[in-house]
Amino acid sequence: MPFQPTEYLPYDFANRRHIGPSPSEMADMFNALGVADLEQLIEETVPASIRQKEPLEFGKPMSERELLWHMRQVAKKNNVVTSLIGQGYHGTVTPPAIQRNILENPAWYTAYTPYQPEISQGRLEALLNYQTMITDLTGLEIANASLLDESTACAEAMTMAQRVAKSKAKGFFIDENCHPQNIAVMRTRAEPLGIEIIVGKPEDMDPEQVFGAIFQYPGTYGGLQDFSAPIEALHEAKALGIIAADPMALCLLKEPGAMGADIAVGSTQRFGVPMGFGGPHAAYMACRDAYKRAMPGRIVGVSIDAHGNRAYRLSLQTREQHIRREKATSNVCTAQALLAVMAGFYAVFHGPEGLKAIAQRIHRKTVRLAKGLEEAGFAIDQADFFDTITVDVGLFQKGVMEAGIQNGVNFRKVGKTKIGITLDETTRPATIERIWRAFGIERQDFDLMPTYRLPNNLIRQSAYLQHDVFHMNRAETEMMRYMRRLADRDLALDRAMIPLGSCTMKLNSAAEMMPISWPEFSNLHPYCPADQAEGYEEMITDLNAKLCQITGYDAISMQPNSGAQGEYAGLLTIAAYHRANGQGHRNVCLIPVNAHGTNPASAQMVGWKVVVVKCDDQGSIDLDDFRTKAEQHGENLAGCMITYPSTHGVFEETVQEVCEITHKYGGQVYIDGANMNAMVGLSRPGDLGGDVSHLNLHKTFCIPHGGGGPGMGPIGVKSHLTPHLPSHPLDVTGAGPVSAAPFGSPLLLPISWAYCLMMGGDGLTQATKAAILNANYIATRLSGAYDILYRGKSGRVAHECIVDVRPFEKSAGVTVEDIAKRLIDCGFHAPTMSWPVAGTLMVEPTESETKAELDRFCDAMLAIREEIRAIEEGKIDAENNPLKNAPHTTEDLVGDWDRPYSREQGCFPPGAFRVDKYWPPVNRVDNAYGDRHLICTCPPMEDYVDAE
Amino acid sequence: MPFQPTEYLPYDFANRRHIGPSPSEMADMFNALGVADLEQLIEETVPASIRQKEPLEFGKPMSERELLWHMRQVAKKNNVVTSLIGQGYHGTVTPPAIQRNILENPAWYTAYTPYQPEISQGRLEALLNYQTMITDLTGLEIANASLLDESTACAEAMTMAQRVAKSKAKGFFIDENCHPQNIAVMRTRAEPLGIEIIVGKPEDMDPEQVFGAIFQYPGTYGGLQDFSAPIEALHEAKALGIIAADPMALCLLKEPGAMGADIAVGSTQRFGVPMGFGGPHAAYMACRDAYKRAMPGRIVGVSIDAHGNRAYRLSLQTREQHIRREKATSNVCTAQALLAVMAGFYAVFHGPEGLKAIAQRIHRKTVRLAKGLEEAGFAIDQADFFDTITVDVGLFQKGVMEAGIQNGVNFRKVGKTKIGITLDETTRPATIERIWRAFGIERQDFDLMPTYRLPNNLIRQSAYLQHDVFHMNRAETEMMRYMRRLADRDLALDRAMIPLGSCTMKLNSAAEMMPISWPEFSNLHPYCPADQAEGYEEMITDLNAKLCQITGYDAISMQPNSGAQGEYAGLLTIAAYHRANGQGHRNVCLIPVNAHGTNPASAQMVGWKVVVVKCDDQGSIDLDDFRTKAEQHGENLAGCMITYPSTHGVFEETVQEVCEITHKYGGQVYIDGANMNAMVGLSRPGDLGGDVSHLNLHKTFCIPHGGGGPGMGPIGVKSHLTPHLPSHPLDVTGAGPVSAAPFGSPLLLPISWAYCLMMGGDGLTQATKAAILNANYIATRLSGAYDILYRGKSGRVAHECIVDVRPFEKSAGVTVEDIAKRLIDCGFHAPTMSWPVAGTLMVEPTESETKAELDRFCDAMLAIREEIRAIEEGKIDAENNPLKNAPHTTEDLVGDWDRPYSREQGCFPPGAFRVDKYWPPVNRVDNAYGDRHLICTCPPMEDYVDAE
Repeated sequence: MPFQPTEYLPYDFANRRHIGPSPSEMADMFNALGVADLEQLIEETVPASIRQKEPLEFGKPMSERELLWHMRQVAKKNNVVTSLIGQGYHGTVTPPAIQRNILENPAWYTAYTPYQPEISQGRLEALLNYQTMITDLTGLEIANASLLDESTACAEAMTMAQRVAKSKAKGFFIDENCHPQNIAVMRTRAEPLGIEIIVGKPEDMDPEQVFGAIFQYPGTYGGLQDFSAPIEALHEAKALGIIAADPMALCLLKEPGAMGADIAVGSTQRFGVPMGFGGPHAAYMACRDAYKRAMPGRIVGVSIDAHGNRAYRLSLQTREQHIRREKATSNVCTAQALLAVMAGFYAVFHGPEGLKAIAQRIHRKTVRLAKGLEEAGFAIDQADFFDTITVDVGLFQKGVMEAGIQNGVNFRKVGKTKIGITLDETTRPATIERIWRAFGIERQDFDLMPTYRLPNNLIRQSAYLQHDVFHMNRAETEMMRYMRRLADRDLALDRAMIPLGSCTMKLNSAAEMMPISWPEFSNLHPYCPADQAEGYEEMITDLNAKLCQITGYDAISMQPNSGAQGEYAGLLTIAAYHRANGQGHRNVCLIPVNAHGTNPASAQMVGWKVVVVKCDDQGSIDLDDFRTKAEQHGENLAGCMITYPSTHGVFEETVQEVCEITHKYGGQVYIDGANMNAMVGLSRPGDLGGDVSHLNLHKTFCIPHGGGGPGMGPIGVKSHLTPHLPSHPLDVTGAGPVSAAPFGSPLLLPISWAYCLMMGGDGLTQATKAAILNANYIATRLSGAYDILYRGKSGRVAHECIVDVRPFEKSAGVTVEDIAKRLIDCGFHAPTMSWPVAGTLMVEPTESETKAELDRFCDAMLAIREEIRAIEEGKIDAENNPLKNAPHTTEDLVGDWDRPYSREQGCFPPGAFRVDKYWPPVNRVDNAYGDRHLICTCPPMEDYVDAE
Repeated sequence: MPFQPTEYLPYDFANRRHIGPSPSEMADMFNALGVADLEQLIEETVPASIRQKEPLEFGKPMSERELLWHMRQVAKKNNVVTSLIGQGYHGTVTPPAIQRNILENPAWYTAYTPYQPEISQGRLEALLNYQTMITDLTGLEIANASLLDESTACAEAMTMAQRVAKSKAKGFFIDENCHPQNIAVMRTRAEPLGIEIIVGKPEDMDPEQVFGAIFQYPGTYGGLQDFSAPIEALHEAKALGIIAADPMALCLLKEPGAMGADIAVGSTQRFGVPMGFGGPHAAYMACRDAYKRAMPGRIVGVSIDAHGNRAYRLSLQTREQHIRREKATSNVCTAQALLAVMAGFYAVFHGPEGLKAIAQRIHRKTVRLAKGLEEAGFAIDQADFFDTITVDVGLFQKGVMEAGIQNGVNFRKVGKTKIGITLDETTRPATIERIWRAFGIERQDFDLMPTYRLPNNLIRQSAYLQHDVFHMNRAETEMMRYMRRLADRDLALDRAMIPLGSCTMKLNSAAEMMPISWPEFSNLHPYCPADQAEGYEEMITDLNAKLCQITGYDAISMQPNSGAQGEYAGLLTIAAYHRANGQGHRNVCLIPVNAHGTNPASAQMVGWKVVVVKCDDQGSIDLDDFRTKAEQHGENLAGCMITYPSTHGVFEETVQEVCEITHKYGGQVYIDGANMNAMVGLSRPGDLGGDVSHLNLHKTFCIPHGGGGPGMGPIGVKSHLTPHLPSHPLDVTGAGPVSAAPFGSPLLLPISWAYCLMMGGDGLTQATKAAILNANYIATRLSGAYDILYRGKSGRVAHECIVDVRPFEKSAGVTVEDIAKRLIDCGFHAPTMSWPVAGTLMVEPTESETKAELDRFCDAMLAIREEIRAIEEGKIDAENNPLKNAPHTTEDLVGDWDRPYSREQGCFPPGAFRVDKYWPPVNRVDNAYGDRHLICTCPPMEDYVDAE
């Protein structure tokens, strides 16, 4: 035996693939930090009092290959039956080129929300296409770039209507033909806000009683109705009319705008986004121009850059929760950007002709299906319909449902005697024959061209998708190149670190991403029979157990589709608990001044009063102020919302005391999970005194950000809160549901589960330590050049650090924005700007970045400091310098150059790659111009053509 | 029924996705060409006499969704049993990040062979990594960037040894421990060249009898031997020693260079490339520096660009078949670039520590396995071994083989009484237990650290993979960014048309590519039991039938792995036919002067004498010369090799006559299938008089070019030749095999099959017509500015056209290379340069390009003509102008600019995108410098670091 085996573990995912710094890089970093090892750094950083007692125990971590094998076994436990349940979820054909080049392409899925427009022009254009599609299909003037799901979109539309309606009535009318999950989620939302929900037939509505009303189109059972009359009546009563509409149906049917609707909402799932057992999908919202400032969610708009060239950006941001905080009327933050991009591309791929043809095919098949049933003697409830019919089968409901499954199709159970059937673009002649067979009919689908059964007055008269982008040549070659061009305009994690504080832009590994493309995960209907989803059940059960172990909680709800949704769901859970204890009057929430903007916005949504608590000059909660205010509001104290480690990136030693005070006065503690990446394996919010927390699976647990969503914000609770978690949306027992699907967006869960399985408990803990190491390494390297705000007792930061650049505004006229834009020249996405402290930069490198990449970033930041110094020392003009002119483009290079610095200095500052430099497609974008001249749909095509 | 359904067919793959010009674009193009419709153009272009009589009948074409569903059903018919057969094919773990970012990324797989180095720096670097890996592992000085498979690499090594050995002996010795398929393919190759094959034990070899010898390492049955002594004996006899070595074994074992080997060959399949039922995989070849000019295949080298910066390129091209033609000693053209890139990245991902650890794990498991067997009383043939053992089971061979399959493992049948077992990196403890169980042993794999069983004298002493690229941080984040940076340096089909004549760079659609990632296709061993590959069998049978219908042939052999291999296989088939008819003396092959360079090279390889036939001034075969030479060599006429339509892009009307003449004198007709893209559905080579043709599936049938391979060159033959097609490599009956695997590279076949199934017969025919339309549109638009050489009678070209730029050398000093490089500035890969006519450009747009893209190309070409005119008219300097300085880089922009034209003119000529411009990473590459200062392994890392 002549040699010993190497100690190198080639399949160690945690230490070889996920965690950035290699062992030798770590050693160099310990030197730089003056610590002997990682454990010493962690001891200096994380107070002993909050450290968890037991390590995480997840068993042996899996290799990538083992993981994929294991996932396949679990996937096989899901039984993919053709679901004809409808109810807002439909089979769809994702064009393979979109699957490959968007959904499976890190250039798209690892991108961040396009807050930095200069490095986001590609996805902003894709989202503008989506908005244009929505405004066209709905016939309304403005659309946002996606909400979480149709049900929450309905709820948002309801509260928006309340804000803008001149009617002061307390009621809100819901068409009884709305999808049950929509009704359930609106009820949840209405309750704490004191909105009185009235469900009924449109013809029975009393417009004077309501500030608004919502109608489903087509109705959940398939019926079609023109809502022009009820909407006109609403308008006369100064109330608003909302239509929840299926965009596929709108390709044939009269659009909401033509019925006078003020707002339209719906799901774009069936535009090429798989059902995924409930999500993620992009819900849309469109409205009249007059209401745009009241519309929640992100809106992409058109502006210009510093040279006057067209540029896209997010517009009207002052409406959003991060600005409005406790004045916010919605906590919507994360969107479903990646899914909106896919749906928008689906429309580009098919164009209006293609969409119309697809809608016609769906309708034609439904007519054929109905005809076969009618000829066999069955009565269809609806005379007219688009894709959904309801059949009364009397006592045979159970038998027909089962016969359906035996024939490979899931029907919808409607009432006690009816069967609902919804067809979609994947329905084949054989499917229709299988449906008939379930009804005992043996016939072939031979009637190729039946007459249509759409009401004449509801045939769509207007054109849609007239913009040139929807009339591009649709050859795959052209489409693929268009997708590539857009992707290349953007800077995502596949090219550089995205050091955004509190956003945890870490590796989304290929192995984690692969299973979400498998049909066994992607093609399940959220309301399919439970025995068809045993793979999902196994995964969710195990992931829940792991998340409980990580957080110290006793139960998890996967329902919230974003972190903000998680906050809202958590506060609802607390409120339900108080009510159950006869403490329903408790309505005060203590929130520190530096909280995430969504915290006060969420408290607002459950009808609570926000009381702001001060922070000390270290950014920590002012304990005296907290105690005073808790005492002051003791009787009415509902709870507090805190973030741990603090939003300033510090492990506060007083966290347990804060929890004790809250509990003492009868409140419940909500710990925001945004910073869990600093805690996993080291400290558990449940142990610190938290009663409920949400976890951002799209931060700590590797779901990619998708350019601004999807996200997942499951909540963990202590056992006393378990009975008050959100209900199943179709089976409301106790607390109301917050999402349309029982498990939120379960198609994302394989990613987080894979991460846990491949990392193991030790790996997850090591990742947390490495995240802290990386942040402290940056803090140490930048110290001296910059002040690092807020450190713990031993001078350490947690997993992020705040770089103070405020002094340079006075010393050199350099703003935080100038530095952020200059970092683009260096090949970086900027850190978080002006949050939690105005005028500063917050940097979170995460554990996935290598030392080399951290050094590249530090080199860039240090060089920027020298550029500032040159201004301070008068060596370069204060208005005409690399910082003010950043970012630099190839347009700058190709044009005349009359600047007091060289092209080389302008374009290749330290940090920038040479051969592989990222060139932003536009110069600095003018935000104010865009808000002054608001355009939120695609501009004329001439402006796209850049070949000349 | 108020409206008629739209006629738009949204799922029509042929006309909506694959074919570029939309119906409205086509209408504009008809106008430009002055034809009423496509049929008129085809009538003008394709002589009626050669049109096929019946349309292709493939049934209803499938939509993308139907195709993927159908493929899944077929895939399920393959039964993925763990294959422990070894024999050169092994289970391997493809790192998911490599699968996602290379194999499934169009930026890599749609690239062309890197003949234009300026737009190929990324893949050239990746291939240089591969070459460095090979030279390191083998301990030899120079390596090429891949051959087709290990068996052909052995054959190439044999003929190379014959070329360079000073010994004039006729014999070639083959170690009896070589893999049987290697022996079979070498026998095939040796026969027509008069090489006498001697198979035996190395100790029995007589060095005086041979010019070279090859040894397998480890031996096919698992034994290990030091070949230093026999190689020394060979050297004394002035003969060469060749070792076929497993690169994984070389991570632990003494390398071929240290044994004195002159050449090493082998397969890199187990470096992360799935078995795929036989391929594609990259075979390697390395040799001593002294023999580099005799080495076949492409070699990447390091050179400099016009500014003196490092740049990569293909070196020593004058060795290659396209230059040497009938003097060529090898017809190797296509490589396995994509697979070599994957294998190279596998080494980068794992580094030397990781590879060594993997090799150790494999060995340790094999020792454990052997121990279990030995302790149960079984005798292992080998005292020492790496990963393969052979066990004598006497009469129980059949029973143990079957028990293996029942336990989920395939063994190798060795002789009549033995079982071969080969382990790999995917072997798990449970696998070993299943093997034992098949031998009737119930035990657990508990012995965690057994002693090694490698002979002391064969333990590797030297280090390997010491270059920094193999010591990068191996975090996935870093790896993903490295892959992205390299991809971004290159220009592939996902960004722009690649108008290469005769290369048919058409769409490789996402739907076609998806199935090759499925384990049911990728994880089959080529020698697994037939009943485990029924899905493959169904696919191959149906694809064969379709290809027969398309070509007019009666049988297909899928064995050849490239077009050149197809030529060789076809000629071997003809030769075998002649021999069977007592006409074995026939050895003269008529080849027109403008033939593909591989044609004469292939004829050379079967020992034929090439007689060159003249062409007339229209580029057509000079019929009189053909007749004269056929007559002159009548007695000995073996056949002719022609290309149709001609390499000049013309449908010659005389093709049938050429065939008749050949047949009249007893010859057989080989029709080169390179230009099949102009024929499918319109004309069939089998009908024209062809006896055999190869089809480039990587041209006409959508297999992507992969940056220079993989390819597939199946041959179709008339029924009289069917008995003479290549044999199964393990069951040689009649004609010898040409590849290691019975069906060549079958993992590629789902692509071509999917293409046929989605296009249908009409779609394929329409594609051919569109290809002809696109070529004629370009010819028409460029006419006037450029002379278009060689047109048919009515002034039309076929599917490509030759643009004459020769006059500009005299008028303006502008060469074809200047124009090619200037096209890079315009965002295009250059057309084929100087072939088939020196100093011209041959353009083949294919049917997949849109009119818009053709116009962009024509705009660029017309603007280049104006730039030439400016030189002709003396308006700009003849040496310092945009053409001579092309391509322009951002380095040009950022530096000083003292040129008689503006930066704008230099960098943004017509055609170039503005925002989305492709910037080449280097200026014009100096080819001569690279050949003078040959470096074919990675240069020091300092040169890679471009962040500063």
